[in-house]
Amino acid sequence: MPHAHGPTLCSACPLAEAGLPPAALGAAGAAIGVIQVAKGQLRTCEDLSNHFAIVRKGALKVEFLNPDGRAEIAGFLFQGEVLVCSVSDQDVAITALEDAAFCDVRPDRIAQDVAGAAAALTRFTQAVADQSGLDQRRLIQARSGPVEDRLMWFLEDVAARQKSDAVHLPMPRSDIAHYLNTSAESVSRAFTNLRARGAIETRSPRRITLTN
Amino acid sequence: MPHAHGPTLCSACPLAEAGLPPAALGAAGAAIGVIQVAKGQLRTCEDLSNHFAIVRKGALKVEFLNPDGRAEIAGFLFQGEVLVCSVSDQDVAITALEDAAFCDVRPDRIAQDVAGAAAALTRFTQAVADQSGLDQRRLIQARSGPVEDRLMWFLEDVAARQKSDAVHLPMPRSDIAHYLNTSAESVSRAFTNLRARGAIETRSPRRITLTN
Repeated sequence: MPHAHGPTLCSACPLAEAGLPPAALGAAGAAIGVIQVAKGQLRTCEDLSNHFAIVRKGALKVEFLNPDGRAEIAGFLFQGEVLVCSVSDQDVAITALEDAAFCDVRPDRIAQDVAGAAAALTRFTQAVADQSGLDQRRLIQARSGPVEDRLMWFLEDVAARQKSDAVHLPMPRSDIAHYLNTSAESVSRAFTNLRARGAIETRSPRRITLTN
Repeated sequence: MPHAHGPTLCSACPLAEAGLPPAALGAAGAAIGVIQVAKGQLRTCEDLSNHFAIVRKGALKVEFLNPDGRAEIAGFLFQGEVLVCSVSDQDVAITALEDAAFCDVRPDRIAQDVAGAAAALTRFTQAVADQSGLDQRRLIQARSGPVEDRLMWFLEDVAARQKSDAVHLPMPRSDIAHYLNTSAESVSRAFTNLRARGAIETRSPRRITLTN
C-alpha cells in the first residue's frame, strides 16, 4: 500500500527554507520522490526534464560530456544543494561519490492553490538562481591562479558547505585534480605544501582539518 | 501620468516562452521594469535580490569580482537571456557592451491568481535552470583545450545564440581573451589561423562570418 504522504523535507532543503507548506507536496509523494544511488552509480540528466534533483544524503559528482565524449567535472553537490542542469542538454552525468539519495522534485506537481505554495515556489526559483551563481563562481575559482591557492580555496569552499573545519572529501584525488584543471601530481604537491606551512592537517586521505 | 500597463514581453523572453498571461504582469509595470544601460555603463548585482534581469536589447558582460578585487569574466548575455547570479553574492558586475536594456523582473509581484500564471512561473524556474546549465557548460568549454578550438567554439556558440552565421561580436578582443583565459596575442593568432584555414571570414573586427 502506498503511504499517504510523500517524504518530509530536510531542514537543509531549499524548499523548506522557502517555506513550502507540507500540504502542497500532495498525497502519496506526488511532488517529491526519493531516489537512492549506490556509491559509483551513474545517472544521466535525461530523466530530470521538468524535475529538480536536490541532494538528500551523501555527495554527487556532476560531469558535462563534451561532443567528443570526454567528461569534464562541473562540480560536486552536497546535502541540500540543487542539481542545476539544462533540460535541453542531455549530456550531463551524475555519479554518487558515496551511498547517496536525492529528492526528485516536480515543481509542476506542487499544489499551487495551497496557501503560501506559490510564494514559496517563487523563492525556490531564487534559490535555484543562487545555487547557479555559486556554481559559476566555483567553476571560475577552480580554474584561476596557482594550484596551491586553488586547492586551498576548494577545501575552504567544501568546509563552508559542510559547515565544519573538519572537511570530509568524498571524492578521490583524481577528481579534485580534474576539477582544478591540473594533474594528480600537482594536487599531491599542493597538499604537501599546505601541510608544510601549517594551513591544513591530514587525518586521513579523506579527512582534512583546516587550521586557520 | 504612469501608463496603465507595464512593458510587453518580447518574443525571445523566457517569460513569454513559459506562457505567462499578460494580465499577470499587473498594472503600471508592477512586475517588470525596463532599465536602460548606456554602452560602458556598469551596474552591480546588488539591486537584483529577488529580481531577475533579462536582456531586452543589446549585450551585457558579466564579471565576478574576486576577494582581491580582480574581475573575472563569467560570460556574455544576449537578448532573451537571464542573468543568473547569487543574491547572497554582491560581487557581480554587469557592463553594457553596447547601448542595452534589460527587464527587471520581480516574480513575487506576478499575480499568481491569474489563470496559468503559477504554471508559467514553474516553467520560468526551469528556464532559469536551463540558462544556468548552459552558463556552466560555457565556462568549462571556454577554458578547456587549445585556444584555436576554444575560439571556434565561442564563435559557434555566439552564432547559435544570435541565430545567424554572421556573428556580431559586441565585445573587444581583450574581453574574448579574458573569457577564454588566455592572452590577446593568442586570440589574434587564433583568429588568423581560423581565417587561413577558411573556417571564418572577417568582415570587420566586430563582424565574423562562419563559413561551415
